Formats: sequence, C-alpha cells, structure tokens
Amino acid sequence: MVQEETIAAIATATGEAGIGIVRVSGGEALEKVRRLFYDAYGRPVESLPPRRMLYGQIRNPENSEVVDEVLMVYMKAPHTYTREDVVEIQCHGGTQSVRRIMALLLSQGIRGAVPGEFTKRAFLNGRLDLSQAEAVMDLISARTERSHQAAMDQLEGFLSRKVRFLRGRMLALLAEMEVSIDFSEEEDVEVATYDSLMKASRELIKEIDGLIASARTGKILREGIKTIIVGKPNVGKSSLLNALLRESRAIVTDIPGTTRDAIEEQLNLKGIPMVLMDTAGIRETEDLVEQLGVERTRLLFEKADLVIMMLDASTHLSREDQEIISMIKNKKTLILVNKTDLPSLFSETELPDWVDRNQLLRISLLEEAGMEALEEALMALVFQGETREQEKEMVTNLRHQQALEVARKALQDGLQALENQLPLDFLQVDYQTAMDSLGEIIGETVREDLVDFIFSHFCIGK
Amino acid sequence: MVQEETIAAIATATGEAGIGIVRVSGGEALEKVRRLFYDAYGRPVESLPPRRMLYGQIRNPENSEVVDEVLMVYMKAPHTYTREDVVEIQCHGGTQSVRRIMALLLSQGIRGAVPGEFTKRAFLNGRLDLSQAEAVMDLISARTERSHQAAMDQLEGFLSRKVRFLRGRMLALLAEMEVSIDFSEEEDVEVATYDSLMKASRELIKEIDGLIASARTGKILREGIKTIIVGKPNVGKSSLLNALLRESRAIVTDIPGTTRDAIEEQLNLKGIPMVLMDTAGIRETEDLVEQLGVERTRLLFEKADLVIMMLDASTHLSREDQEIISMIKNKKTLILVNKTDLPSLFSETELPDWVDRNQLLRISLLEEAGMEALEEALMALVFQGETREQEKEMVTNLRHQQALEVARKALQDGLQALENQLPLDFLQVDYQTAMDSLGEIIGETVREDLVDFIFSHFCIGK
Repeated sequence: MVQEETIAAIATATGEAGIGIVRVSGGEALEKVRRLFYDAYGRPVESLPPRRMLYGQIRNPENSEVVDEVLMVYMKAPHTYTREDVVEIQCHGGTQSVRRIMALLLSQGIRGAVPGEFTKRAFLNGRLDLSQAEAVMDLISARTERSHQAAMDQLEGFLSRKVRFLRGRMLALLAEMEVSIDFSEEEDVEVATYDSLMKASRELIKEIDGLIASARTGKILREGIKTIIVGKPNVGKSSLLNALLRESRAIVTDIPGTTRDAIEEQLNLKGIPMVLMDTAGIRETEDLVEQLGVERTRLLFEKADLVIMMLDASTHLSREDQEIISMIKNKKTLILVNKTDLPSLFSETELPDWVDRNQLLRISLLEEAGMEALEEALMALVFQGETREQEKEMVTNLRHQQALEVARKALQDGLQALENQLPLDFLQVDYQTAMDSLGEIIGETVREDLVDFIFSHFCIGK
Repeated sequence: MVQEETIAAIATATGEAGIGIVRVSGGEALEKVRRLFYDAYGRPVESLPPRRMLYGQIRNPENSEVVDEVLMVYMKAPHTYTREDVVEIQCHGGTQSVRRIMALLLSQGIRGAVPGEFTKRAFLNGRLDLSQAEAVMDLISARTERSHQAAMDQLEGFLSRKVRFLRGRMLALLAEMEVSIDFSEEEDVEVATYDSLMKASRELIKEIDGLIASARTGKILREGIKTIIVGKPNVGKSSLLNALLRESRAIVTDIPGTTRDAIEEQLNLKGIPMVLMDTAGIRETEDLVEQLGVERTRLLFEKADLVIMMLDASTHLSREDQEIISMIKNKKTLILVNKTDLPSLFSETELPDWVDRNQLLRISLLEEAGMEALEEALMALVFQGETREQEKEMVTNLRHQQALEVARKALQDGLQALENQLPLDFLQVDYQTAMDSLGEIIGETVREDLVDFIFSHFCIGK
C-alpha cells in the first residue's frame, strides 16, 4: 500500500441537523487531529485504545478558542473504510461547525479530499472491487428502498461473485484450450475438446444473457422509469398526476435540487422510482401536444421508458385520441380508460389491432377506483416476472451492461469459430477478450483514466 | 432520573453525502438495536466495551436482508449527550439508508423523537442548562463563524456562569436583608445595611446593563443585520449588491431553502451575517421606490437594522435623493458616495445638517475602491468598540434579554425603595423577582410550557 497524503472532507450533508461529521484519512490523521482535539478527561489521545469514541473539544491552536464540542474516534489501519488510518470528528450539525473544523484541519497541512477520494482509496487498497465502489454511490443516491436494496446487493458483492465465477469458468476454458493445443496431435482429444468448449460457451452466453436481461430492471431501479402521461384535454391527466403523488410512499422531492415546480416529478411507487416527465406542462395547459407541438411531443415520447395514455370511457375515440395513439406505436404503453364512473361509450374495438389489450386498464380517478391495479401493472412492467433472487445479481450500471455485451460478443465469435472447427489458438483471443471485459466490471482489468472518471462522479466526503 | 421512552431520529441533514447517522436514546437503546445489528466478527455486542466503534451490518429481522453496512457505537449512561444510554448507527448517506434504518427501529417499538427531544432530555437530566440548550440550536443554525462562536461561548457556559454569579450576589443580598430584619431593633445595623444594599444594587444593575447592551450585537450575530440598499436609479445599487456577494467569505446561500432568486440575500462579511432585503427588487428594476411606492419602502425601512443609502459623486443631490434622505432620518444609515472615479460635483454641504458625516464613505464600485473601508464601517456599526472578552458573555437571545430587563426593573424598584428607606421586608419581593427572572435564563425557575415551546423550535434529531 502506497503511503498517500492525508485527506479530510465533510462527510455529512449540508443543512440544519443534529450532527455533522468531518472525516480524515491517511497516515498523519491522528497526529494532525491530536493538535486540535482536547479530551474531556485530559487523557492523551495516543494512550487510548483505537475505535473508542472520545468526548472532547476542538480548539483553535492559534488562540485556544473552543470551536466545538465533539466526539472523536480514531480507527487504525487496515480495518477501516479506506484501509488507512481514519479519524472521524462528530461535531454539531449546520454549516459552521463542519466548516470551521475543516479549516483547522487544512491549516494543519491536511489536504481537502476530491470527490470520491475515500472510496477510491478503499478500491485501490483492495477493500472494495470497482462494482462495489460504484454501488456505494448508487446507495447514496438511491431514491427508493428497492433502488437502495439493489445497490446494497451490489455492495455486498452479489454481482462481483457472479462475475468472478464466470471469469473463473473462462479461465478454465482457456486452460483447457492450452492443454488441447499442446496435445493437438491426438485427434480424439481435440474433438472432445471442441464439443465441451461449445457446450461451456453456450452456458456462459446464457448466463451473461441473464445478466444483460436484468439490466433493464436495474436501469429503472437506478435511474427511475421515465414516464410521460398523455391524452386529450380534460381526460384527467392532472388528476392522475395528483393521485400518483398521493400514492407516492415517500417524499422523494425533498432531495435538494428537486423541487415541486420542476419539470420532472419524482415518485416512489412501491419502491420503484418513477420520473414523471413534463409535469409542469400538464399542470399549466392540460394539453401537452398543443403546448409543445407534435414534433417536441414525439421527442419526449422517445426519451420516455413508459407512456401512460389516457382515454375517456364516456366518449368514443376522437381524432385527437387517434393521433396520439399513432405516436405510441412501438412504445411501452399503459392505456388508462378513465371516467368509468360515467356511462360508458368507449369500446376496445375502436382501438387499432396492434394495441395490446393486456396493457389496458379501466379506472375512475373521481371514485379513486383502479389505482391498485395501476400500481400492479406498473410493477409487472418493471419486473416482468423476475424473482427476488435473480434481482440480487442485477446489473444496474450501463458500464457493466456494456462490458457484458462486449464479453457476450466475444464468446459468440468464439462459439462460431468452434462450430467452424477453427484451430483453438485462433479462439484464445476471444475468450481472453471476454474475460478482460468482465474484469472491467470488478476493476481487475480497468484503465486508470476510467477509474478516475468513475470516482470523479462521486460526492465529496465519500 | 425518570426512565423515559427510548427514542430515535435521523441526526444528519438530508442529502447525498458520505455518511448518515441515526441516533437512539433511552434505556432500551442497546437491547433494541442489538436485534438489528450484526457485528462483522460475529461478536455479541453486549460482550464488547461501550464507546467502541463496531463495524457490521444492519439486517431486516424479517428476512435477514442486509439493509446497510454500518458503524455502530453504544455509549452507556450517564456519560452521554442525553445522560441516557445512547446508540449511534453510522450508515451511508443519502435518503434511503437512514430512512430504512429508522423504519426498522420503529418496527422494534422505538418511538420517533420529536424536535429537540434529545437536547430536552440533556436539559432535564442536568447535562445542560436552558441557555446552553438554546445555544445548541443557535450553533446549528449559525450562518457565519462569528455567530457560531457566540453560540459556542454560550454553550460553553460563559453566559450561564455570569447569570449564576449575579444570582449568587442576589441571594447574598436577600440573606443580608433577612438578618437585618431579624435584628431590626438595633438602629445602626439597619443604616449600614441600607447603604451596603444600595451599593450592591447599583453594582448589580450596572452588570445587567452591560449584558443588555451586548444584546444588540448578539441579536445581529444570531439573526443577521437586516440591511436595505437604497438610492436613485443607476446610482450603482446592483453593482454594490454584486460586489458584496463577491466579498462574502462563505457561500451561505447553499443552505436549503435559501436560493439565489429569493427576495433576501444572505451574506457573510468578515463573520457578520448580513441579510440584504429585497435584493430581487434591486435586480429587477434598479428602482425600489418606484417599484414599491413610497409607503412600502417606508415599511421596509422600518424593518431594516441598517440602511445603505447610495449617492452619485458626479452629480449634485437630486430631488429624488432628498426624498430618500428624508426617509432615513432616525435610521442607522451608511451613506455611500459612489462613482468617485468620475469628476466630483457632489459636496457634503448639500446634505441636511442632521446627517452624520462620520457615516459617509466615498467609493468607486467601478474601480473597486473603498470596499475595505465599507467592510470596516459595517464592523464598527455592529460591534461599536466591544472587545472580544465582553463578547464571550454576550446575550444573543431575545428571551434572555427580556428576562434581564425584568430583573433590572425589579432591582431598580428595590433601589428606589431603599433610597426611600422603606422597610426591608417590602424589598425582598423585588430581589426575589430579579433572582427568579435570571433563573429563567438558565432554566432554574422556568415554566414547563416554556421549556416545551423552546425545544419545539429545534430540528428533529437534536
């Protein structure tokens, strides 16, 4: 382990709260903090056992002024988050305590940490692999409990273990090829090898396909399902919006930066993060198409993962409805037939044949009927029958998905070559590519600039 | 100490950050958390020494799912913030980790804490007096380092010790009166007593006057100096606003809830919190009076602690200037004569006699000349020559100021009675009132509903 500079950062969010934390990591952490910390019982800090929560004061060494009453804990390397010596200073919340303590630490020659630097050190020092390190950030930015659990599973290493297992299988195949090449004189060995290699390759591809398939759900849990509500004026779009906001189980809009009047509304529907796009438009005019024009609406449709199209049960399909329907072709759509409290005129036969009748739900927002069915339909759309166990090995990260796709392509090429009975030494490169590509997920074969890029997107203090 | 219900709350601010803390206090804290926490080394938590930072997992007891990797520390009563058993769970930052852990704690029968409940327990259990408890909230909401230090001094007990000292003196006086009443036959004793009582009363009043005088600075440090910038169009109001924003040493506008386009702009000028009122007006029209009308401007003037009036050095005083000047009479005003880079036409003799020439500064915002003098003038206005030592015993809280004023009034009444040679038993009530009133500051004589009211204004988790 290289001895790195000692760094410090405010590790808690900014705002009025009970507690704030400043975290210090590096070989000089204790030595530097010791100059600022005064134990309430006057004990020399270095005489006390590590990991003990000490009560005392942070004082300005210039004038002995008490800057805050704090709890301080020193954790000795390597059993720490960064695998380096770590000191945590728990002070009062709010903006000033953490800032003033940070300023004192910097005055002692400690450097302010850059975004993600603690976790980057944890990665470089082998405490976490790269996919686990990425999970830390996902965990922090998760907006629903399901998203959080997906990140937690990844941090716990479910994906890493699967990737390691697959890489182990590939290594075994490469070893088998090596042996076969060495003994390539003996014809019968080789035939057996080709068969077993093909079988193993197909199994590997199947496993990777499973992971890639999970990426759809994973992306939704990580980024939210981008949804747009469309329909003619007065069909009930803003009523639906308000009903969804009411059902939302957690206020996710209290995250700084997301506000109620923003153009996107973030919901938590049974743990699924939903991002309702252009809700400001719905609120303002009740008529998206008229407001934005057909072209911009079409662009919004393209960005959406899901379209909720609303129809009026009490009227026949209008030309306006038909126009909108023509836009949702090839788009994942849920059709909500609202106003079932009124005498029904609308019939499903009015819809074009290509519309999937299974994605049609009858509701009455006025009578609050059908909201549960709507939630279930949304769940089904997101999870598509996946069980909890599969979920644990879920791919939530586009980078991981792309690495899996590269590996799959390489394995497919290898399989093709095997089927064409090409010499085994031609194949090795494909299996090596697949193995390296999976290695990128867990950071075993990753380039340094990519590592820098990944951690630069973390928040400071993590 | 009454055994209270065990409570829990999220103790860190909401937002994406490295670390979040959930704090638990009460007799069942350890027993309940133990059901959720799994030590990484499989050790039973109760076998480990208190105050040791343990690494492990919080698991959902329903399904054993890992909810987060955490650091957990158990601190045994009475050496804790609340003087009760306290458990802190340090988890990942963001919204979900803290929420999910809170939900698990509640499912174990722990109650969610109400605002200020931890600090209220600290007060009720004698760890802090009331003025110190109030200082905790001031510390958290402080917007500049000077405000923070004033709150820290109060938490450290500077004000409390002063109040206790004054109450001690009052108690001694009451005792002296008691003795004198008992021996009231002997004439000469009584005369001596009247003299010494008058002397002591005058000293007490002087001390209390000193504290009351500090409340002006204290209020500014706690609440900010409410400032309004006025002047005719194009005199440079928005340039001054921008210059002040640039000089502001800390971004205080990143506190959730305060945004750049708000009507108030919060600045930190050499540690003094400034609240610039109606800056939106300045940005929009450059002409406050025209925009708001004379009447609303007058109301704004009344709310302001300080008016910064801007004049144009390159022109004579206009009718508009004179109108504004007529409004600042009897108002603490700083007059900035801007545009000293241009040939000067304005002369101080054009100003009415009652304008204090010492509060006049010549600046050029274009050439950035005079900003330092402006800052110094602001500092002088706020501190009015008070020294750092006086500051340590500063009154920052309106409640404390009012209690001091009640005490002063009672002492004054007592002094009057002494001067009139009224019988001593008539005086005792005055001195008792003064003592009780000071007791309210530190919470020794305070009513329960007031205590409830004070803590209800705290944030949750403190």
